[in-house]
Amino acid sequence: MPQLKLSYFDVHGGRAEPIRLALHIGGIGFEDHRLAFPAFAEFRKTTPFGQVPTLEVDGVLVTQCDAMLRYAGKLAGLYPTDPYQALLCDEISYVVEEASGKMGPTFGMKGDAQKEARLALVNGSMPVYLAWLQKQLLAHGGDYFADNRLTIADLKVFVDVRGLNSGRLDHIPTDLVEKVAPALNAHLQRIAQTPAVAAYYARFAA
Amino acid sequence: MPQLKLSYFDVHGGRAEPIRLALHIGGIGFEDHRLAFPAFAEFRKTTPFGQVPTLEVDGVLVTQCDAMLRYAGKLAGLYPTDPYQALLCDEISYVVEEASGKMGPTFGMKGDAQKEARLALVNGSMPVYLAWLQKQLLAHGGDYFADNRLTIADLKVFVDVRGLNSGRLDHIPTDLVEKVAPALNAHLQRIAQTPAVAAYYARFAA
Repeated sequence: MPQLKLSYFDVHGGRAEPIRLALHIGGIGFEDHRLAFPAFAEFRKTTPFGQVPTLEVDGVLVTQCDAMLRYAGKLAGLYPTDPYQALLCDEISYVVEEASGKMGPTFGMKGDAQKEARLALVNGSMPVYLAWLQKQLLAHGGDYFADNRLTIADLKVFVDVRGLNSGRLDHIPTDLVEKVAPALNAHLQRIAQTPAVAAYYARFAA
Repeated sequence: MPQLKLSYFDVHGGRAEPIRLALHIGGIGFEDHRLAFPAFAEFRKTTPFGQVPTLEVDGVLVTQCDAMLRYAGKLAGLYPTDPYQALLCDEISYVVEEASGKMGPTFGMKGDAQKEARLALVNGSMPVYLAWLQKQLLAHGGDYFADNRLTIADLKVFVDVRGLNSGRLDHIPTDLVEKVAPALNAHLQRIAQTPAVAAYYARFAA
């Protein structure tokens, strides 16, 4: 196995969290380099585009979170080998990234400007994406998004939905998912109760 | 092989073009559904997010261009089977998509606003991305981006660089790539001269 070092903020969420989960579930050892926010200003200068996460693979620096997630998924056995199932899995990842990317510019906003921008998403693109995700889940049996088993698509959605429900995102109603796409909350509970996922978070609670 | 129908604008570029090229190179038959711009307004209503390309696989509608491109790459033998080489290939696709995504909002702008926004990219993120792509290419031997052979990463960059050079993007200097990352232009020429790629475009010139 390659030597892996994953660098990201010290939070249980965001763009590195599905990668951490995939590696943990697969029993793949990696250095979990967690940046304090003040350290990020210096660290980003060492990255090609000023962004995290980064992944070092045997010392080679790699960018782009979902490229890393797919790689971690292959190492961990959480990525479909069938091309069509992999297509469905990838489609989910891109849609989640596209939906959450629309939130990106609002993090730099304040006050009414942020409120207006986020409510536009809450009343615009977010229900569309959430309803589509729910439809995909239900179309594939209701348990998993692809391949009839846990894949990185489930981890990507799990982390995203948990963030939306968390109350840490001002102006995003914590019952948005429950109102628009309750099957995604049932999915979230199921993923959280997966033994390897539960064991992962239990480490931090201890 | 599945029945494939790819729907996109009738242009030799954009987000469907690498998929068309991959399928053609692999000898994979597909319906090349080309939308006239007026027809797009109706067609988009049949898509989940109002976006093209879409791919129908045995009648199932799939979105997200690079999910399709990876699928096409697997069918066509243009995607690495080695996970690390696939990671490098994927990283390139995400970076090109991220870079070209920054251009997205400028298509709806006019006059000075568009000029200002595009020059900000020309003097900001674009040289960074182009220089990084060149560095990746040279780090892997100078001919291909991953796996020491033609992959979908080469097709993704080829279509993007050809667009930047084309003169069809107002305020983007047609010599930007040549000035910042000339190895990408040499790569472009090499890909264009690949027999299957040359044969593909010769069909349209006839």
